[in-house]
Amino acid sequence: MIRRLAIIGVGLIGGSLALALKRTGLVEEVVGAGRGQANLALALANGVIDAQAESPEAAAAGADVVVLAVPVGSMPALMARIAPVMHDDMVLTDVGSTKQDVIAAARNLLGARVGQFVPAHPIAGAEASGVVAAHADLFRGKDVILTPLPENPEIAVARVQALWQGCGAHIETMSPLEHDRVFAAVSHLPHLAAFALMDELASRENSPLYFRHAGSGFRDFTRIAGSQPEMWRDIALANRETVVAELDAYIARLAHIRDLIAAGDGEALMAVLSRASQARQQWAQYKLKNPR
Amino acid sequence: MIRRLAIIGVGLIGGSLALALKRTGLVEEVVGAGRGQANLALALANGVIDAQAESPEAAAAGADVVVLAVPVGSMPALMARIAPVMHDDMVLTDVGSTKQDVIAAARNLLGARVGQFVPAHPIAGAEASGVVAAHADLFRGKDVILTPLPENPEIAVARVQALWQGCGAHIETMSPLEHDRVFAAVSHLPHLAAFALMDELASRENSPLYFRHAGSGFRDFTRIAGSQPEMWRDIALANRETVVAELDAYIARLAHIRDLIAAGDGEALMAVLSRASQARQQWAQYKLKNPR
Repeated sequence: MIRRLAIIGVGLIGGSLALALKRTGLVEEVVGAGRGQANLALALANGVIDAQAESPEAAAAGADVVVLAVPVGSMPALMARIAPVMHDDMVLTDVGSTKQDVIAAARNLLGARVGQFVPAHPIAGAEASGVVAAHADLFRGKDVILTPLPENPEIAVARVQALWQGCGAHIETMSPLEHDRVFAAVSHLPHLAAFALMDELASRENSPLYFRHAGSGFRDFTRIAGSQPEMWRDIALANRETVVAELDAYIARLAHIRDLIAAGDGEALMAVLSRASQARQQWAQYKLKNPR
Repeated sequence: MIRRLAIIGVGLIGGSLALALKRTGLVEEVVGAGRGQANLALALANGVIDAQAESPEAAAAGADVVVLAVPVGSMPALMARIAPVMHDDMVLTDVGSTKQDVIAAARNLLGARVGQFVPAHPIAGAEASGVVAAHADLFRGKDVILTPLPENPEIAVARVQALWQGCGAHIETMSPLEHDRVFAAVSHLPHLAAFALMDELASRENSPLYFRHAGSGFRDFTRIAGSQPEMWRDIALANRETVVAELDAYIARLAHIRDLIAAGDGEALMAVLSRASQARQQWAQYKLKNPR
């Protein structure tokens, strides 16, 4: 049971978490804080939060659990403000899409209280953003990755775990390094690749001609390019080394395909496309059997 | 009214065309031919075609309209076989995803009858393939691009146009060059980019770890990588110059983003991602107002 839950950043993720936990009855009171006053007012009016604090530290003061639900680039400044109001029974957690940098910030800024910070990453989201997009079922059946610290007492990890299980999520534990590597490849890279295609076409003089004829393949490929630029800038910079390595590998793979086409090597091209197509079909089968 | 329609290649596109035209009553008899005997037998059993011919030329002989619904790399060999059975009232058309190469083949192989060939490209499809995936509504509300030849009599173009309008499609006319440029950017490139990501991850020793954590963004980005490898090999080679130029432009754009991340230039990165995200949101709005 959480008496007071503080959500810093009441957007799609923070708002959905509040709604899901209120429905379970696991939470008595949700206090929200954030930068967007209109967004916060809407969250209050819609009952997503019960009270609106004037600052992150005011929201956190007296809370049992504090959730940082902001782009990862904003985490350090928030931790610095919240550290002074942390008390012994408080658990701090986050929803950041990268983990090594957030953990490094926690080590720098929380001092002896770093063991009260349990890093987490719910694998859910959409190109929509803001509390208007929040809903109580966002995390149902989805993965939440925990990357606990050696300093975390078991009870702190268990509290964060219970919170996400209350939302219907499935918990997995990984090391921060493994997390950042895996999500650089399956999430950060595809987002940047989708942004790159939109930027390339939008920069052309005759872009309306292209966009007019873009169909359903283009629609799905670029869907994630509608995501929040700030969030993805932060992720790319936070996971810089790994993201750059993934982009290099992807560019090399594209250049290889380009060279096969330029050389008219149909056989080698067919081998690459067949392997890719088979892998995609196998993955679709796997996801049918393991939906989340 | 078409007395006899020959469909060479009774797959997703050819089969859906047959089903749509039979429903309109615009066609008296549909004869199918193709390489896959099991697929053809299924098409016959399901009533997608009325008769199964032993060869493409046998299907075409005596047909009013012949539709080549095969990967573009197979068009030249088919044209060579059909040319000898063409009569004065026959219209030949195709559904190829590239137009300049198919037209070049027609000029080479159809001789004086090239005016009877009306090039067409229905903008519809799916990663599914084969006649099992065919359905009568595949082209409803979709674009079909015609790239007529100077040699085409108006009446031949009108017949092909009527055929697709009968399927509920919207007709647009473009030059073959413009067609190949536009679709290289909005279709061929995204397909190759999706294949490239799947191939990159599938080639890794620990690929199951990556695939296990791939979520909905990855799912949509890579959906088109499940497409038929043969079809996309043919398209890439048929539209070689333009596809290579598009891959070069895309690789350069990715390399630019990579360099901004490596340099930690958050401001320039934010500008790129914001432009891309805005363009994607505008395109989604445009498509809502112009659905097809």
